[in-house]
Amino acid sequence: MTRPLRIAHVAPVATTIPPAKSGSVQEMTSLLTEGLVARGLGVTLFATGDSRTAGKLHATFAHGYWHDEHMWPWELYEMLNLAAAVERAREFDVIHYEATSYPMSLAFARLSPAPIVQTLHHSPTPEEIALWARYPEASFVAISREQARLLSGLNVAGTVLHGIDTARFTLQERPEEYLLFLGRFTERKGVLQAIEVSRRVGMRLVLAGAETPYYHDAVAPHVDGTRVVYVGEADFDAKVQLYGGARALLYPVQGCEPFGLVLAEAMACGTPVAALDRGAVREVVDDGITGFVFDGLDRMVDELPRVVALDRHRVRQHAVSRFGVDRMVDEYVAVYQRLVDAHRGR
Amino acid sequence: MTRPLRIAHVAPVATTIPPAKSGSVQEMTSLLTEGLVARGLGVTLFATGDSRTAGKLHATFAHGYWHDEHMWPWELYEMLNLAAAVERAREFDVIHYEATSYPMSLAFARLSPAPIVQTLHHSPTPEEIALWARYPEASFVAISREQARLLSGLNVAGTVLHGIDTARFTLQERPEEYLLFLGRFTERKGVLQAIEVSRRVGMRLVLAGAETPYYHDAVAPHVDGTRVVYVGEADFDAKVQLYGGARALLYPVQGCEPFGLVLAEAMACGTPVAALDRGAVREVVDDGITGFVFDGLDRMVDELPRVVALDRHRVRQHAVSRFGVDRMVDEYVAVYQRLVDAHRGR
Repeated sequence: MTRPLRIAHVAPVATTIPPAKSGSVQEMTSLLTEGLVARGLGVTLFATGDSRTAGKLHATFAHGYWHDEHMWPWELYEMLNLAAAVERAREFDVIHYEATSYPMSLAFARLSPAPIVQTLHHSPTPEEIALWARYPEASFVAISREQARLLSGLNVAGTVLHGIDTARFTLQERPEEYLLFLGRFTERKGVLQAIEVSRRVGMRLVLAGAETPYYHDAVAPHVDGTRVVYVGEADFDAKVQLYGGARALLYPVQGCEPFGLVLAEAMACGTPVAALDRGAVREVVDDGITGFVFDGLDRMVDELPRVVALDRHRVRQHAVSRFGVDRMVDEYVAVYQRLVDAHRGR
Repeated sequence: MTRPLRIAHVAPVATTIPPAKSGSVQEMTSLLTEGLVARGLGVTLFATGDSRTAGKLHATFAHGYWHDEHMWPWELYEMLNLAAAVERAREFDVIHYEATSYPMSLAFARLSPAPIVQTLHHSPTPEEIALWARYPEASFVAISREQARLLSGLNVAGTVLHGIDTARFTLQERPEEYLLFLGRFTERKGVLQAIEVSRRVGMRLVLAGAETPYYHDAVAPHVDGTRVVYVGEADFDAKVQLYGGARALLYPVQGCEPFGLVLAEAMACGTPVAALDRGAVREVVDDGITGFVFDGLDRMVDELPRVVALDRHRVRQHAVSRFGVDRMVDEYVAVYQRLVDAHRGR
């Protein structure tokens, strides 16, 4: 047996790893790092100094730019954290960059002695793909087949759906009488459509997410404290409570998201989901088992009784088997190994 | 004699080098590149494919992001153009990066086999300086003593005032009866103050600059076509005409600018300037010779007759001796040579 892989895992420098409250990239980054460490791999996490890991922490900055308006422009902080890993590239077999907004790691693709792989967390435009395709040295991990499809022409080293900490998302057998919308308040996420659905089916809706200008402008006018209730941004424990208490999670997403972490999280609590058929939704939801995927709001309204009637034990069971951390870690290790072998073969 | 220095000059990828119309960084970049080439140095200009140079052109992109909304985020294009120079670093003695908004070149400071020097074109905040100071490997060129003062704690390899193509800014002995404001329309540049001054002294004001939202919101309501005239954005020839025809250039700048290219350009046309005492103004204007520097608008209004009475021949003469390209090129060559010697000494 050869020595364990040495991995530089480069996190966003926006906030702590794991995040105090929400932050899907930060959650996933933490789970992957800790999963790799648990397997005995040598992991150095490049993240803010207030992050926590059982691996080695390389803290380029004390804290993240979400918490410090002086850390501006944030892109430079992000670049310097990434550069710190590339400067130490000879100590690693592979550098894994979590690209929250764009793969600035391409700038190092031809300079780093270790191969760099980047996980993308957004849906790129054709122009972005054309630009990135100039760097055949760069490898990408897609977070869904939906996203991988957009990456055609690039060197996609694997498609790895996110994992979640299924042990901490616990089943609640008897939910309360409400529907849940949890996530960022943006037009794209469909919060207004969630409000419409809850009104038409005559059920209470609980909204959870950070207070933003969009919340104030577009969402707050609908919040009355009885039919539509706003509970602020939920930390991990509050999130599990909210999922577990909901009859169903509403996910009337308007844009094409490359994944949908809240879907997996809700399902792991046994909560079925009612989602619109956009982006990666069909890859995350097992239609008719863990939720239903609808082609429009009318269908979602009409068939919501079928969603809430789904067997919560079975919902959780399926979610656990599909979105466990071990599966994600296995698949990333396979990606790293392929890259390292290919790099050695050069 | 050793072989000539080989320089990678990395331009912004916003537009062509030189710019079709305005763009002070682009003007300066072009003049420096051509000046270095004229001295027999080996210069490779990293710029858009539609740029023009007598040196070698490395065109990472066909055109600039000012002209293509799909080139977004612009930071990635800028980074990849810079990275292209670093990838070829072994072919150069020094890499010179023109940092239009922030020195992303710091990310390469420890990765590039050739030393990188960055010219800054803005006034940095104390937080930016604290961040940059983490990279003692990085050298900076300040564009004024005013800016150099802000860079305390950094490795400042030199202070080099911009040069301009004094041969093309020709003297116009008999100006017309107007004052001129030329530049970007922003609060910081003081266009509204220029309008106030022209009104109070009862002279016509000509405004030249690109049409922007600020122009429409704040400036256009004052434009009447007789007392305040707007002529759009001027290309080079139009600019020379406008300077030469003006009795004086008004520069009631509100923020602290690290230089003031329009001051030097106007003076080279023999046009005296009336400026407020902010930022680098006193380094550019020879008070009482090429213009007057005032501590407030009232003084500017009261003493404008003294400004317009300055000897235009003498204004031009002084400007030519201080802002010629040769002086700038000499000083940059000295900076490069110092860096190369220091790098060899390591």
